[in-house]
Parts: sequence; structure tokens; C-alpha cells
Amino acid sequence: MMKLSIPLDVPRGAARRRYEENYRLMTKETGRLFLMAGDQKVEHLNDDFVGAAVAADDSSPEHLFKIAQSAPVGCFAGQMGLIARYGMDYRDIPYLIKLNSKTHLVKKDQKDPVSLQWQETSQVEQFVRHAGVRVVALGYTLYPGSEYEPAMLSEASRLIFEAHQMGLVFVLWVYPRGRSVGNENDAHLIAGGAGVGACLGADFIKINPPVDPSGQMDGMLLREAVAAAGRSQVVCAGGAETTVPSFLKRLYDQIHLGGTSGCATGRNVHQRSFEEAIRFCRAIHAIAVLDQSVEEALALYNKGS
Amino acid sequence: MMKLSIPLDVPRGAARRRYEENYRLMTKETGRLFLMAGDQKVEHLNDDFVGAAVAADDSSPEHLFKIAQSAPVGCFAGQMGLIARYGMDYRDIPYLIKLNSKTHLVKKDQKDPVSLQWQETSQVEQFVRHAGVRVVALGYTLYPGSEYEPAMLSEASRLIFEAHQMGLVFVLWVYPRGRSVGNENDAHLIAGGAGVGACLGADFIKINPPVDPSGQMDGMLLREAVAAAGRSQVVCAGGAETTVPSFLKRLYDQIHLGGTSGCATGRNVHQRSFEEAIRFCRAIHAIAVLDQSVEEALALYNKGS
Amino acid sequence: MMKLSIPLDVPRGAARRRYEENYRLMTKETGRLFLMAGDQKVEHLNDDFVGAAVAADDSSPEHLFKIAQSAPVGCFAGQMGLIARYGMDYRDIPYLIKLNSKTHLVKKDQKDPVSLQWQETSQVEQFVRHAGVRVVALGYTLYPGSEYEPAMLSEASRLIFEAHQMGLVFVLWVYPRGRSVGNENDAHLIAGGAGVGACLGADFIKINPPVDPSGQMDGMLLREAVAAAGRSQVVCAGGAETTVPSFLKRLYDQIHLGGTSGCATGRNVHQRSFEEAIRFCRAIHAIAVLDQSVEEALALYNKGS
Amino acid sequence: MMKLSIPLDVPRGAARRRYEENYRLMTKETGRLFLMAGDQKVEHLNDDFVGAAVAADDSSPEHLFKIAQSAPVGCFAGQMGLIARYGMDYRDIPYLIKLNSKTHLVKKDQKDPVSLQWQETSQVEQFVRHAGVRVVALGYTLYPGSEYEPAMLSEASRLIFEAHQMGLVFVLWVYPRGRSVGNENDAHLIAGGAGVGACLGADFIKINPPVDPSGQMDGMLLREAVAAAGRSQVVCAGGAETTVPSFLKRLYDQIHLGGTSGCATGRNVHQRSFEEAIRFCRAIHAIAVLDQSVEEALALYNKGS
Amino acid sequence: MMKLSIPLDVPRGAARRRYEENYRLMTKETGRLFLMAGDQKVEHLNDDFVGAAVAADDSSPEHLFKIAQSAPVGCFAGQMGLIARYGMDYRDIPYLIKLNSKTHLVKKDQKDPVSLQWQETSQVEQFVRHAGVRVVALGYTLYPGSEYEPAMLSEASRLIFEAHQMGLVFVLWVYPRGRSVGNENDAHLIAGGAGVGACLGADFIKINPPVDPSGQMDGMLLREAVAAAGRSQVVCAGGAETTVPSFLKRLYDQIHLGGTSGCATGRNVHQRSFEEAIRFCRAIHAIAVLDQSVEEALALYNKGS
Repeated sequence: MMKLSIPLDVPRGAARRRYEENYRLMTKETGRLFLMAGDQKVEHLNDDFVGAAVAADDSSPEHLFKIAQSAPVGCFAGQMGLIARYGMDYRDIPYLIKLNSKTHLVKKDQKDPVSLQWQETSQVEQFVRHAGVRVVALGYTLYPGSEYEPAMLSEASRLIFEAHQMGLVFVLWVYPRGRSVGNENDAHLIAGGAGVGACLGADFIKINPPVDPSGQMDGMLLREAVAAAGRSQVVCAGGAETTVPSFLKRLYDQIHLGGTSGCATGRNVHQRSFEEAIRFCRAIHAIAVLDQSVEEALALYNKGS
Repeated sequence: MMKLSIPLDVPRGAARRRYEENYRLMTKETGRLFLMAGDQKVEHLNDDFVGAAVAADDSSPEHLFKIAQSAPVGCFAGQMGLIARYGMDYRDIPYLIKLNSKTHLVKKDQKDPVSLQWQETSQVEQFVRHAGVRVVALGYTLYPGSEYEPAMLSEASRLIFEAHQMGLVFVLWVYPRGRSVGNENDAHLIAGGAGVGACLGADFIKINPPVDPSGQMDGMLLREAVAAAGRSQVVCAGGAETTVPSFLKRLYDQIHLGGTSGCATGRNVHQRSFEEAIRFCRAIHAIAVLDQSVEEALALYNKGS
Repeated sequence: MMKLSIPLDVPRGAARRRYEENYRLMTKETGRLFLMAGDQKVEHLNDDFVGAAVAADDSSPEHLFKIAQSAPVGCFAGQMGLIARYGMDYRDIPYLIKLNSKTHLVKKDQKDPVSLQWQETSQVEQFVRHAGVRVVALGYTLYPGSEYEPAMLSEASRLIFEAHQMGLVFVLWVYPRGRSVGNENDAHLIAGGAGVGACLGADFIKINPPVDPSGQMDGMLLREAVAAAGRSQVVCAGGAETTVPSFLKRLYDQIHLGGTSGCATGRNVHQRSFEEAIRFCRAIHAIAVLDQSVEEALALYNKGS
Repeated sequence: MMKLSIPLDVPRGAARRRYEENYRLMTKETGRLFLMAGDQKVEHLNDDFVGAAVAADDSSPEHLFKIAQSAPVGCFAGQMGLIARYGMDYRDIPYLIKLNSKTHLVKKDQKDPVSLQWQETSQVEQFVRHAGVRVVALGYTLYPGSEYEPAMLSEASRLIFEAHQMGLVFVLWVYPRGRSVGNENDAHLIAGGAGVGACLGADFIKINPPVDPSGQMDGMLLREAVAAAGRSQVVCAGGAETTVPSFLKRLYDQIHLGGTSGCATGRNVHQRSFEEAIRFCRAIHAIAVLDQSVEEALALYNKGS
Repeated sequence: MMKLSIPLDVPRGAARRRYEENYRLMTKETGRLFLMAGDQKVEHLNDDFVGAAVAADDSSPEHLFKIAQSAPVGCFAGQMGLIARYGMDYRDIPYLIKLNSKTHLVKKDQKDPVSLQWQETSQVEQFVRHAGVRVVALGYTLYPGSEYEPAMLSEASRLIFEAHQMGLVFVLWVYPRGRSVGNENDAHLIAGGAGVGACLGADFIKINPPVDPSGQMDGMLLREAVAAAGRSQVVCAGGAETTVPSFLKRLYDQIHLGGTSGCATGRNVHQRSFEEAIRFCRAIHAIAVLDQSVEEALALYNKGS
């Protein structure tokens, strides 16, 4: 039932074959994506990795790789430098190289958000070809509404084109943000961001789940974004921490009410101990990729705990 | 009766032949252009695509391609990423790749408008050559009067030159805008913008229709711009939503009083259902390209409704 | 009597021969230059081309080419895009490609003036070699005193070097302007600007005619600038509109009292009807290039009117 | 007992062998680094090199080279221009080329800190290959929290990749700084910076030693940063001037309580006379590299004084 | 007695021989430099070249070349464009191409000083190789303490490296300046700037002579800077206009008390008539290069007057 639409900027021949292989691998032949986000050591500095509610395992970045290796994630997103340090011991992970990242120190009241490409494209290509790990995708964060939007739109366009030239899938994080942006979680605004991702030609667009005016999440609110994204597929970020059943229910609704194609989760996974994280990932995988019910997923989470 | 003036920066030989073919195709051998604008998913986010007055079809970007495929449009303007996603199923459309786009989130009170080139020129060239769709033209939006005017003037100049090297026609959107600009719809100012387009060497210049001091549109007001544009041809944007007869009358006047060479329409077309959009496009085509009367056009619009 | 000093950055061989031919052609073997400026459609938008005092002919850019083709001008300065549109029908004109231009919308109270290179140097070279028109010179406007002076100094330096590599003559427009500049028409300041042009290695430096503290023009005031320019030759812009005899007298004084090497005129020429513009150009040519008297020049202007 | 983890962006073959040799040389086969920092002539202008408490020897930059040649330092960090002047007489020193530096004149109240790459990467490569000195590492300073963070993140990423391509080790100075940063010495913030260094793929991360809320240093406070850095190794800057026993005790604690992999010291070394500096370096080396006790180190310092 | 230290970024072979020849030529085999500065037509516009106290000869830039040709100067510093205009008639002058220059119109209260590279490095190389004049050195002005310091540090680093690749000597003008800088003439600050020049690898560093807190110059004040510059040699700018004996005495002290390696003089030389300028240059040469006494120098100045 997987719907594979290979965009026209993927050249015929080897690149097309690689693109299809990568897409099939990261969606486990289902067209659905469970992306494990591991770029927060820059985006949030060390805030997500220590604290009362955080498992001690999470203090070292190796925790991320251990989970990604053992859990049924479609791909693990991290910066190239970190992958270069751990990849030799975690060769089975399908990697997404996150190409831009910024810290959260400068707030938008001080300066609009701007996050720029780290490595040069030719360096990324060299790494993909020669590092000996399986890179299936590239990723980039875009902040529509920032005063620095034009620079990020150009970088995103160029990187998506190059990713496709190399036969890699592209995931675009799209977060409307900046002094010009009122409610970042507004469904109509988020749908607008998804449409931008479609015009850029992203394969997957990662958005924050919209909320209604009273602040409640509702899977139905995603429909506008999913429609606006057209043939680009939408995945939702995990949202704020909550109980496991609530998390799984929300994910189920995003997919079945909202029409999203999976999920992208970071903190919710890696802040748990290795053992619990694996169980939690299995539950997410059940809903996001295997199209199972919340109950089936919860059973997987509870099994062996 | 078509007047074809091939600019000197189109190299003799294959590029010249391609340029002439492209020009003939997009003007249907008449020298008149009906451009269907489909770049609003970035320019206006999702605002144009949902709402009480908008047909439900318009929520998905595929609606744009369906119309462009079936209606007699000279070319369909969209971002390369979107064309890469749908073009394989809509190969008959003559495409214009819109090379820059920005969202409308940052208002000019916050920062002057700036919209920069997305893909690199070599990437565009590769897409034009190898993607397997018929690209006939490139497009770019210029904001004279913005503090960022110099960067956009340079990008536009370079892209026009490269388009001509490839045998592609170039359409320049020219909208005076920024803190330095008083009345954006002033006929003299708009004529100034058209003259800038002429100096840049654009083939077609898309301008907003000027209004008189009382706010009324009048085809005669376009004459100054059409004269200032010299051998570059002027097409008008659709203007605000109105009734079909008013729209067609205004278009007729733009061409017959103002001397423009066609029209460029987006929202007015795609916010209608597929079926109505096709009828509306036929009516526009009748006036803009076939030089028919308003009555003939209205008859086409009403036929089969 | 022509003094031809070929700068050392013109390579020996073909480039040197071309430089000498171009210099001789544009100065009609006299070392004196009558430059017809036709870049105002960007610099002043449409302000110079319509109005009660402006001939109706001037509403279309073709008027510029008609004059330049028939009048004894040394070269016609315009943007490359415009030349690409009309050059095929006006092949006898010696062209100067004006490489930067900006509109006058952003005033210096809002932001210091900045005007940047339009086409890439390699594009200019390709046009010069292959377009089939006679390009004899390149031109660039510099605003000393602007906060953006460093970018313009770099662009001007690089372009002058490249022009000389191609055997082209270079004309530098030098207008001190910006928040740091008090009286733009001060003779000492203008001389400073001319000295900057000399250090950049321009062949001709176009300056505004200085005025004395009471606001009066006086040819003697130019002497400081002409001395400061050294072996770079100075030509004056036309100055404000006035009567024909006054204009010619002023030009005579600029050359004979001030020591300038010709003139650069735009509006004063093209705002007249074709027929009058030709007569006026003959009069200017008589003084600026043929070294005739004001009376002789006036006779040419009046002949056939 | 040395743990050598060669990152995946070091190409197999010659580069890998060079990387391993360089790493072994600069850590003296222990995996521990004693870096002598000699980049302060730019960073602090002449403030560190003259004064009542500074040995007269330190007024000339040659003092730095004399110490680095005779003392057991793992590498000496300096700017390429300075190394080019003295390296021919000090060929035994393992050099680290510090690729960016800025003066301390512009304070963060005026403008956020920004320090950019000096030489082009190809120039660095040429120097490394042909200058005839032993370059083992490259270095760069990053200021997370600065408004200019994106430019520095990109430069650091690209340089680390290129260093590894050449088989060089990379040391990243990471100092959170800027208007967005409250307490620069906060342990959690510093750990965040170390995590950024890990994501960039640095081999060694040089941080300032954190202090507790009362302003006291404590080796235990480093643990969070050492964990966050993962397989990138952490070394501490020397901290404020103090007595020799205190300095050595602090260093011992940093390593044994905090888990750091050595130290990076500048002023504390070169502000002493040549003879004392050598004795002090031996003491540092004893603790930082040879894993000896504070008492053993002090004995080395006192020996021969 | 000449101390020639060839930096390691000068490649062995032809470049090394050229570097040594150039160094020997510009220091007349003594290691001492008398640089005649001729870049003020940009730096000070026409202010230095006209006025009651300025010889009439100085109104034309040719005056500079006449002096440099006939006087015993080590090298003459000017912009490439000016050298390209006069060099064919003054082939005996050893030229230094000044690579950046800015006007003095924008004051530091409006914007911090920034002066950027004019010609591209490849253009400079082409000129050096093919123009047919003897270029011995390149030069660049750096403003430590400016907000634009990072851009200038990068340009200076890259240019010094390239100069050395070509076998050219490099002179760095170092003037701490900007809103962050208090007393530009402070000895400690100037020494800091000299240290920056050393880290950049300049061969000669041109600084302004420091003054003591009461505003008096004192050769001893230079010692800190000369020490900080290490193997880079320091030369002093001329300072404010004064009597000839005072000037020569000050120069003598700079060298014999301060330890500088010559001098760099502009206005003090070219504002005199040709005949007097030559006599004055001979006097400067006597002290700065030939190591003669003030009395011997004065005798040369007075001889033939």
C-alpha cells in the first residue's frame, strides 16, 4: 500500500535506485516514517539531557545511538560530527544528517531565529560516500516568518536539490517563528508552513502539532496542513511530555484523524532509560508504521517492563 | 501578427531556436501571454487556498496542476520543488519556474521586502535539461524601493542573462514596495518599475494594475508603463476579486486601452472549482490571447455551467 | 593632438589594440568624449521621460537609441538588458554598458546610497564578445562617503581591471553622497572624488559640476578636480536644465576654463524631440569634441530648426 | 591505556595514519593533552605580556617558542603568521594552528562576539604540507549564544571536516558568550557548550572551568560537561592566576574528579621567566599527562629553582 | 648587518629568491625601510594636496611619482589603478600596491572604520607578473577595535599568505580605531596592534608613533611595540607636520631609542616642491636607512637649497 512518488529532481539511474532504497528503508516499506530526533544537544544545549525527570543514561550522547540501534526507528537524525564519532560502532542505524542547528540562547525578542548550513554540500557528499555508515536522508530546519527567512529558503532549496541528486530523502523541519509570528501553534499558520515545504520539494515535512484557540491539540486540526503539503508527507513532532497512553493516543489521532505519515520524536524517547526507551519506541512504531491500535501499542510498551 | 524580438543575449543557434519555440508556445503563436500564477503557497502561505469563498478543491496543490493541464494557459508559474513533485503526471503543461519567493509574514513596517533566488543557477539548468518536463520560462520578483533592491537587481540581471543563454523566456514580477514607497498603485511609479524591467532585459513584465487618485482602475493608466517598458511586454496581475464580467471587462480594457500583452492570474482562477476554473480560463484566454470580445468570453464562461 | 595613455593593466597584444581602437572611436580621434547617458530609466525611474517639458518621443526607450544612432555621440551608456533589446536595430552605436544602477526611491535619510554590479563579469564578457554590437566601454557609479563605499570601491576596482583586460575603456561616475557628506557640489569634495577615480584607474571620470558657495557654477572651479584626476580624464554631467545658449556656454567654460575632456549628457538631450535632440547633440559635439566656439555650436543647433 | 577513536570523516589510508600519529604525538601516547595556548597576542593584545607580575622575557613573542620547544607540552597553539616567523628555529614543536582570533576591544555590550577564520582552508593545507614544521592540529574558537553563532558554527563544521581530511586533530575552544548569556561560568551552560562541540565532531573541546553559585571552582562540576562531550575529550583552560600549588591541585581535581583529559594553559605558563616556565610545565605535564600526584608535580616544579 | 628572516609561508625556490631580492631592494641591503606613502588621495581625498602650506606641484598625482623616481625611497605605496596610469614613465620605482583604501568621509561616530580589499588576489598577481613595473610589496590597512575587525583580519591573513607565495614583502598599516577604542595613540594599545601584525605574519608593521599621557612623543614609548612585533619589523608614520629638524630628530629617536626599522612618510614629503622633497627624502634616508646622525641628515637637506 506504500505510495512512492519519486520527485523529478532525482536523476534517473543509480540515484533513483538509491532514493527508492532509502525511502523504503526508512519507511520500512510502508511509506510511514518514525524519525528519532537526536539534534537537541545543539538546539537545546544540555537541557534535555539532565534533570530529575531524565534517565541518567541520557547524560552521554551514546545513549542516543544505543536506542537508535536497538529500537525500530526509521532513521536517526543527528549532526554529522556526532555521527562521525559513534557511527563505527552503530553501523546498522539508518542516519539522517541534520545540516543546520542553532542553540536556543538567543531568543526571538533579541534577534529573529536563523540557523544556517554547517558543512559544505561537497563535504556532506564525501561523508555520505566514504564514511561507511548508511546515510538515508538529509534534514534542515526552516523558520518561516524570521527576518532571515530568505537565506534559509535558499539553503533549503539547494540542499533538497542536492540530496535528491545523491538519491537521499529530505526531511524539512518547518517552524514559523520570529517577531512577525503571533501564535506559532495556529493550525492555519502551520498549514502555511507545510505548503512552503511542499514548494521547496521536501519529501517529509516535520511540523509542530497545531492547537485550537483554547490550547487543545486535536488531530483534525492537522488536516489543513496535510492537504497543503500535497505529495510531501507530514510528520508531527512529539509535543510536550505527557503520559505514555496520552502520547500514543495523540499519535494515533494525528495519523488517523489528521492524515500524517508517521512521527518524529526526540526527548520523549531518549529521556527514558535504555530499556524503557526501546519499549516505548516499539509502541510508537506499532502505531506510526505498522498501523496498529493504541491498545496493541500499549501492550508492547508494557511487555517486559 | 506576432512580433518576436529575440534579445541579443540569446546566443545564436540552438538557444535561439529554443527561445523562439518557447516564446511561441507560451504565447500560442500570438505574442500574447496568459500566465497562470501558482506561487502563492509561499507568497501568501495558505491564505489563498482555504476559506468560505474558496473551493474545497483548492486545499491541495494538485488542484493547480489539474487546471493548468486542462485550461488554455500559456504557462503555469510555480516553484521548482512543487513542479518536481507533480510534473511527472502533468507533462503537457508549459512550466515557468519561479526562482524566488518569500512569505508575507514579515511586513514592511518591520523590514523592507527581500526575496532571494532559491536554487543555484546550475541547479535550475540541470532541472530544465533533465527533469523531463517542458520548462519554457523562468521568473523572479523584484521590489524596487526596498532597501534590499541592490541584491535583487543583481540576481534578476544574472538570471535573465542565464535564462536567455538557455533559450528560456523570462518573466519579471515588478512591485515597488518598501518604506520608501508611498502609493504602490500609482501609475507613474508603476511605469517606473516597468522601465526598470526593460533595463534588466525581461521579456515580460508583470505589474499590478495602477489606480487613479480616487482608487479607480482605468486601462488608460497603463499606457505610461507599456511605453516605458519598450520592447519588454507588459502583463497585468489580476487585481482584487470581483465578478466575472467585471474581471473580463477590466482585462479587455488593460489590453485594448492600456496596450498590455496578456494577463497573469492566480487566485481568481484556482479559488474556483476545477470545472468553473476551466471555464473561466477559457474566457480569459479568449480576451487575452485570441483577442475576442468580452461578450464572446462571457459566453465561453457560461457554456456548460 | 590626442593624448593616448594606455594603462598598464591593459595586456599587450590584442587587448591593447582593442583598447586603442575603442578609445579612438569613442573620442573620435580627439581624446575628447561626448557621452550620451541613457541609464536614467533606473536611476530616476520614469521621472525624466514624461512631463509637460518632455517631448512625447521620450516615453519609449527606443527614443534613446534613435538619437544615439543619428547624433554624433562618442558613446551611448545604457544597461545591458536594454541594449540587448534594441541593439540589433542600432548596430552603429558605440555602446557603454552601465554595470550598476539603482532607483532613487530610497533616500539618503533612510539609508546611504548603494548601487551594486548587475551582471557577473563573465556574463559581461560573453555579451561583449558575442552579442554582435560594438561595446567600447564599461561604466560604474561610485558614491564616496556612503556607508557602503567599501563594497563599491571593490567592485569598481575589479571591473576596471577586467574592462582593461578586455580592451574596453572605463568611465566612472563619481558622486560623493551619503549622511556623511555635507555639500555634494563643493569643488574641493568633488576634486577628492576625482582623485579616488584616478586611484581606481578609471579612464574617464564623470563628475557633477561644482558650484561656489553662492551656488554659482564656474568653469574655474573644475581645475582642482581635473588636476587631482591626473591622467584620468574628467567629463562633466550636464547639470540642471537651462537654455541652449547657457548650456553651451557652460560646457565651453568647463572645457576651456576647467580643463575637462568633454561632457556626459542625458536628460538635456533625450527630453527633446528627435529632430531637436539631433541638432542639440551636433552643437554639443562641436564644442566638446571639435573644439569649436559657442557661436559655431549655436549655429549648428539653429540650422534647420 | 590510551583510547583512540578515529572519527569517520578521517579518510582511510594516509590521512588515518597521519591522524593517529598526530594524536599520539600530541598526547604523548597517553590520550591526555597538555596544550600550551599562545594566541593571546591577538585575543588580549599586549595585556598578558607586560606588567609588574609578568617576566620581562614575555615582552617578545619568541619567549613562547622557547618555552614550547623546551617544555613537555603536547602542542603549542598559535596563529599561522607567527608560526611562519619562528618555526624555522623551533622545528621540534608540535604546532596547532589557531584559525580564528579577535581582539578584546569590542565588548559584548557594544556588539556580540564574532571571530572568523583567518586563512582560507586551501592556504592552511598548503602551509601544513610545505612549511616544514610539524603541524599536528587545528583550532577554532566558538561563542555559542552570540548573535553571530551561525557563521561560527558553519566555519567550525567545515574546518573540522577539512582537518580530518588532512589527518589533523581538531581542538575547539567553546565559550558561551554574548548578550543572551547570563553566567558564562555556569556548569550546565558549559556542559551545553561541550555538547555542541561533540555535535561538531571536535577531538578536544577546551572549556572554561565552571564555578558553583558561590563562585567556587569544583572539579565535580565538570562531570556534566565531560559526559555531554561524549567521545570528544574535554580540557580545561587554566583559570585565573593563583599560586602554583593551588593551580596544580585544581588541575588534579579537574582530571580526577571531573574526568577531563588534560589542560590548556597560556598566561600561567608564559608570564613566568623561561626557567620557571619550564619547571612549571613539567609539573603540569606530570599531572595532566603522566597521571602523577600533586606532590610529585610540586617536586618537579621546585627542583632546581 | 642586515637580518633577513624569510617566513615559512614563502615557498622554497623562485618565490624565496624573489622575496629576498625584493626585501634587499626595498631596504637597500640594510634591513631598514623608507616607505613613501602615496595612498592619501583616497584616504584623505584632496585635503593633503592643496592648501596654503602645500606646494602647487602636489595638485597632480604625477608629483608623487616624480619624487619617488628621483628620491632614495625604499618603495612607493600607491593604489594599483594609479600605478597603472603612471608606471610606464616611472619604471625605476620599487612599488608597493596598497590593496585597501577608504575615504575619511564616514567618521567613527557614524560607523566604525572598515576598509576592504580592492582588486581580487588573482588580479593583483596578474598585474605583478605582466604590468612591466617592479612591484616589491603589497600593503593593507587594519583597524583593530573596529566592529568590522573580523573581515579585515581575514583579508589581511589571506593577502599576506598570497604575497609571500608570490615572493612579495608585506607591509601592514595597523591603526586601532573605532567606538571601542579610547586613546588611539596610547603606547600599550599600539603595542597590542603591533602584536596582532606579528600574529598575522606581516614583514613590516606601520604604526602611529605613541604619545605619553601628556601628549608628548617619546622614542622610548615605541619599545613595547617593537618587542611585541617580534620578528616583524616596525616603522613609524610621520606624525603631525613640524619643522624639518624636529622631524629628523624624532625619526632618529624612533630608530635609536624605540628600535624601529625605518619610517613611512607621505604628506611630509609630497607637500613640498619637487626640489625640496628630494632634499628632504635624502635627509630621511640618511637617518632611516644609512644610520647617519641628525646633523648629517640636516646637511643633506640644506645642501643646494
